[in-house]
Parts: sequence; C-alpha cells; structure tokens
Amino acid sequence: MAEEFDFHPMWESLGMNLADHDMLLGAVGQMYGDMFLTQNNRPKSTSYLDFVATNIHSGRIKEMLDKKEAGEATKIVGSFCVYVPEEIVLACDGIPVGLCSGADWATDKVEEHLPRNTCPLIKSFAGFKLGEVCPYIESSDLVVGENTCDGKKKAYEFFATQKNMYVMDIPNVHDESTLVTWKAEVKKLAAKIEEECGVTITPERLKAAIHAVNGKRRALQRLAATRAADPAPISGLDSLLTVQAAFMDDTPRLTGAINEMAAECEQRVEAGEGVAPKGTKRILYTGTPMAVPNWKLFNLIEKAGGVVVGEESCTGSRYYKDLVDESGETVDEMLDAIAERYFKINCAVFTPNHQRMKDIVQMAKDLHADGIVDVALQFCTLYEMESFAVEKAAEEAGIPFMHITTDYAGEDAGQLQTRIEAFLETI
Amino acid sequence: MAEEFDFHPMWESLGMNLADHDMLLGAVGQMYGDMFLTQNNRPKSTSYLDFVATNIHSGRIKEMLDKKEAGEATKIVGSFCVYVPEEIVLACDGIPVGLCSGADWATDKVEEHLPRNTCPLIKSFAGFKLGEVCPYIESSDLVVGENTCDGKKKAYEFFATQKNMYVMDIPNVHDESTLVTWKAEVKKLAAKIEEECGVTITPERLKAAIHAVNGKRRALQRLAATRAADPAPISGLDSLLTVQAAFMDDTPRLTGAINEMAAECEQRVEAGEGVAPKGTKRILYTGTPMAVPNWKLFNLIEKAGGVVVGEESCTGSRYYKDLVDESGETVDEMLDAIAERYFKINCAVFTPNHQRMKDIVQMAKDLHADGIVDVALQFCTLYEMESFAVEKAAEEAGIPFMHITTDYAGEDAGQLQTRIEAFLETI
Repeated sequence: MAEEFDFHPMWESLGMNLADHDMLLGAVGQMYGDMFLTQNNRPKSTSYLDFVATNIHSGRIKEMLDKKEAGEATKIVGSFCVYVPEEIVLACDGIPVGLCSGADWATDKVEEHLPRNTCPLIKSFAGFKLGEVCPYIESSDLVVGENTCDGKKKAYEFFATQKNMYVMDIPNVHDESTLVTWKAEVKKLAAKIEEECGVTITPERLKAAIHAVNGKRRALQRLAATRAADPAPISGLDSLLTVQAAFMDDTPRLTGAINEMAAECEQRVEAGEGVAPKGTKRILYTGTPMAVPNWKLFNLIEKAGGVVVGEESCTGSRYYKDLVDESGETVDEMLDAIAERYFKINCAVFTPNHQRMKDIVQMAKDLHADGIVDVALQFCTLYEMESFAVEKAAEEAGIPFMHITTDYAGEDAGQLQTRIEAFLETI
Repeated sequence: MAEEFDFHPMWESLGMNLADHDMLLGAVGQMYGDMFLTQNNRPKSTSYLDFVATNIHSGRIKEMLDKKEAGEATKIVGSFCVYVPEEIVLACDGIPVGLCSGADWATDKVEEHLPRNTCPLIKSFAGFKLGEVCPYIESSDLVVGENTCDGKKKAYEFFATQKNMYVMDIPNVHDESTLVTWKAEVKKLAAKIEEECGVTITPERLKAAIHAVNGKRRALQRLAATRAADPAPISGLDSLLTVQAAFMDDTPRLTGAINEMAAECEQRVEAGEGVAPKGTKRILYTGTPMAVPNWKLFNLIEKAGGVVVGEESCTGSRYYKDLVDESGETVDEMLDAIAERYFKINCAVFTPNHQRMKDIVQMAKDLHADGIVDVALQFCTLYEMESFAVEKAAEEAGIPFMHITTDYAGEDAGQLQTRIEAFLETI
C-alpha cells in the first residue's frame, strides 16, 4: 500500500469530514512518532506495527472496501467490545473491525446527546461519528453493540439513530442459567450476521473462522509469554499496539506478523536482549481498555523508566487468553463452543467477578511483575468500583499497587508522571 | 406508640452507634419541621405522615421487633428497589422494609470501599451501615439487592461483606425471553425467602399478600388521581412521603391512612380547596428515587411557588401504577402474575425504554402539568443518560422541561432555587 496514494476521494465517498480528518491524522501521526519511534531497542519485526499505524485510516480501509467491491468480502461489521464474536463475522465472509473510540473528538456535539460525565471511550465513539472522522464507523454496514455497562447500553440507543445497529445482551452473572441465555444470544447474533451478509454459516465456514481466530490468539499468547523474561524483549507500548491492531487488521496478515514478532522476541530472550535493561521495574497493567490512539499511560510508565510486561485488559490478555474449543463438528456445537469461550472473559460487568482477581494475581506472578498499575477511565463505574477488589487481591498477594483514574485529555499527564515515578521508586 | 418511651436500649441491642444516631435523628427532625410543618393548608389527614416521620426510627422498629418476638412475623427483609416483590416477603410472614439511603453519612469510611464518584444513594446505604445509624439495616435478617445499575451491582459485592445478602438479577431488555428469565428469578427469590423465613408459601398466603399490596397500591393510585385537580389538594412533599412511608410502614395501617387522605383530598377537590392557590405552576417530577430524608428538590420547588402534582419515579408512580393480576389460583400462577407486574416497571436499566417516555407524557397530560423537572442523582449514569430521551419526549409533546443533576448535600440549594424560580417564571 503506497503512501503516495491519495485517499481523500475514498474518505469523501464515505461521507467523512476531510479537513477535520486530516487534522486528526496529523495529530495521531505526530503522537505515534513521539511515543513509538523514539523507543530504543525495539525488535525489528515491530516494523509491522509501523505499517499498521501508517495504513490504519487509509490503506487498510481501501483494502476492506476493495475486498467488498471484488466480492471477496460481504459486509464490514464494527464493534466496540471483545464480547462480540469475530468468528461469526468471518464465517460469513464479513470483516470484523473495532471502531474508533480512543480520542476526544467533537465533544461539543457529543454533549448535545450524552452527559458530560460520561466515560471518554463512549464520548469518543459518539464524537468520531458526529465529527465524521472514523473511516471504520463510516464503512461499517452494521455495528454490533453489547450491554456491558450502563453507559454503553444507553449510548447505543443514541448511536442506533446514527448507524445500522444490533445490540447483544450480556449477562450480569456467571452461572449455568446465564450460560444458556448467552448461548442463545450468540445464536441470535449468528442469525443476524447471516441475514446481514446474505450467507448461511456452514460447518466448514465456521470451523475455518474458529481456526483462523484461534491462530491469531495463539500468536498473541506466544508473544505475551516472551515478556516474562527479564529483560523484557518488547515494550508495553508495542505489545499494546499488537492487540489494538488485532481489532483492525486482516487476520492472517496479523497472525503472521505477530508470530514473527514472537519468534524474534524468543531469540532476544535467548540472547538476553531487551527493550529496557535487566532489572527495569516491571509493571502489570490492569483495567479499562485502551483504543487507538490512547497510548498515554503506557508512554508515561515507560518514559518514567518502567516497562509494562502485561495487560489484564480487553486490549490485552482478555482478548487472547482463551481459545475456542475446536472439537465441534456441527454449526450448533461450534456456536456453543464460541459462546463458552466468550463467557470466560472476566469483564467487570459480572458480579461477583472473583476469577478476574485470580487471573490478575496469576499474571503478576507469571510475568514477574514488580507492581500493578490499575487504571479506570473516568466515570467508568464498573472498573472504578472493582478497583477496590483488585487492590485487595494485590495486597493479599503482596504486590505493590497503584490506582489511576484518567481520561483522554493530556491535562493530568504531569501529575500522573509524578505519581508513576514515585510508585516506581517505592517498588 | 408513646413518644416518651426510651428507644436507646433497643438501638443499642441492634448494635447501633447511639450518639451518632441521636445526632442524625435531631437533624432529620429539624428538617422535617422546617420543610413539612411549615406548609400551609395541609389536609388534616396528613397527621398520619407526621406520625410516620416521628416513629420511623423508633416506634416502627419496636413494633417490627415485637412482632418477631411474639411470633407474628418471621423475618425482616430489607431492600433498596421497587423491583423486589414485597408480596413474596409478606406471604412468608416476613416484614418487607426499604433501607436507609437518603442522606450522606460516614462518607470518609464509605470512600475506603467505594469510589468518591459514586451516586449518593449508594454511598448513603454504605454509610448508614458503616456508621451504624440505620435501624432498618441493622434489624434486617436478609437484604435483597438487585442488579439495576452498575453502581448498585458492584456496591452489593461490598455490602454482602456486611450483611446477609441475596441479589436478584434484573434483565437489560424487555422481551419474551427476558420475561421467562425474570419469572425464574422471581421464583428463585420465593424459594430463598421461604427458606429464610422457614415458611412454605401456600396459595392462601400468597393470595392474601397480593391482595394486601394491591390494596396499598390502589390507595396510592386513588390519592394520586386527586392531584389532577387545580388547585391541587395536597403538596408534592406530602405525596412523596406517602410513597416513602409505603416502603417502611405496616401495610394495612398505611393502606387505611392513605385511603383517608384520598377521601379528604376528594372532598377538597369537590370544594375547590387546595394546598396552593388555583393557577399555581404545576410540576411533574421525573427521575431518580428520593429516599427519606431526601426531600430537598420538592421543598425547593414548592417553596419557590410551584406545586408538584406527580412523581414519575420509584418513590412515585412506578411504585403504585401497576397491580398484580389476582386471578391466579396456584402459587406458580400467582408468582408468574407477580413477575409480570414487576416486569412493567420502566426503570432506566432497560434498553430501549420507550414506554417510560410514553408514561411520562401521559402523566403530564393527565395531571395537567405545566412543566417537567427531570432529576438525576449525581453519577447515576442511567437516569443521567436517559434524561436526553425524556427531554426529547417532553419537547415533542410541547411540555416545558428542565433537567437537574444533584446530590444529597445542600451546597447547590441556592443555585437550584434560582434555576427553579427562573423555570417557573418561563412556564
């Protein structure tokens, strides 16, 4: 995908605001340069991430639209959450994409529809739509939401006035009866996607999709495992971007690239080579997801002299830690297996959510983390409230802990830097 | 119940903090005097409300404990929400009570367990427990929570460390399949209450309980209907207290008293007698519930020269507008009828929630409201977000609308008074 290509006609055809979008791309490009390209000792294979970042709003969109045009893809299906099974979209030759929600945009317009005190991620996706600056939102034929929190649940009512929308219901409780409900919900989604894409899901199609997505998750698991080494072979920033990319890039390409990164990182571990010196303070990040270009916290932690070695987050381990069982033969069996896999995601929507606490402590041990930085986006009731349980679990496990509440604005960067530096010094 | 009786030994036996509780009662008593007893032209039968207010933490608690002692009642079952079916508790000779959640208390202790940015109602019930100043919480043998919002859902995880707790799951969506789920949830609660009270629910017991609670709701409907008249026969403040009392007082006594108030108000309407002059600006309140002693908004509206003629709220019409169908003969049929009745409550937990908008517009028309004051407690994501839909519905129906976000503190009273006065002038 050549950089010189002029994507403006494509963006215009999507109904986007060209001047504002150029401004956005300029700002994100600048941020990427400042945060990612200034890192020392990056694995060479992270050049893939630079490719993703460069093409994210341009080449990748063209590729998706071209595939639809050529009949190789049916529909583009957007979502905002790891609870929406991408296997089902792929089985219908659809293209699953994560939608823009990582930066403040058109806040004045957003606040005509949503309260000021709404979490930045939600305000962001509304703003990207109202400001017409997200080619993923604009090119999506269907947006699949999910009732994972009060804020999203109500914001989707507004978003449905803007886009063709379908909302999955997510249970509040993990038990046998809600698993039954959830399986039915996954099957309802499958019927909806089949209808939208004009494709009937066959066992072959679904098996292939499950295999492809499992492959992607296995590659991410393999890369994540290398980060247990000291020195860590790859930065938190680059690792975060691998999962962010997994929501946007082509599945086979991403899988190949991540496996290459994992292979290089395995060699680096073997050679004792790291992105930061041995003995650098190792941080496990826990909490709310970070959508592109929300790299703020990781940049702060790593510029302050720490290294993030794991993310217990939807843009982290919650995305890749579980695989779909591949033994199913019928569509029904495979959809059940998909539902079972997604049911294991320990989102804070669940009450109680003990398994999340166990996962966090286990991750901290496996990755030899020196401390936990737990983060909630402002006004995210669920993660903000659950942070008390995370703190208690960390305390009981003897792991130093700090909680941060933040948003997408830069105003608290100085204060956060001071707090993070102080935390790194004490651990 | 004699005023001279010393209740301190009873409060002490409940493990309460006597000095703090005395302070609380003093403050609430003062507030009651300033807000309620200064009203002009109250119906004489509101003396019942003064009786309730006087006895709320004293005589009523003694009465409940005495009933248990005498074997006339089995258990005291507390709750925080109109979604917990009191018919089931009554059928087991239990005493259903609403728990304290209407004032800030022990905030410093609360914030060790819950985020500062939590809705005041949630912080309040945690504070009443941690500060040991709510005799309803302390005397409850079981507390039944419900997953109606992210904040309560997570706060109940903490509350369960303090009290014997059971949580009902509430759906996000109103449809045929969630009605099935909800019916199962109601039956699970019935089994839990039977077990807790050591009573088996028989058709006779349940029929009697349904009849009693329907009678209570009918009385409240009858009273509410008189408020359509101009002049309004009773204030919003007193009307609010009738529903607040319905969560705490003995069902037959309350039903009798409310019917007396309704009869007096019917006579006043006949005679053209009102609590405020004919032509007083008439306000429909919509939004979050107000637990005792949260009378702030109604006091402001009515002291500013308006009169509240209806409450679309859980401490209002949502409590009494629907009855349980009484045609069921078996326990199973009656539990289904109970589930169906509660399923109609248009809490903002539901998505979408169109019927609530229709109810609001209908209430405004039926009650000849001149304007809507829509209120959300601070950090109440659901009602805060749904206020945009309420505003749109009001606008489309041509009803003047104002939205207020507030908390339990008095700091914004001056500013709110100015805003409310300005609103009353424009309508």
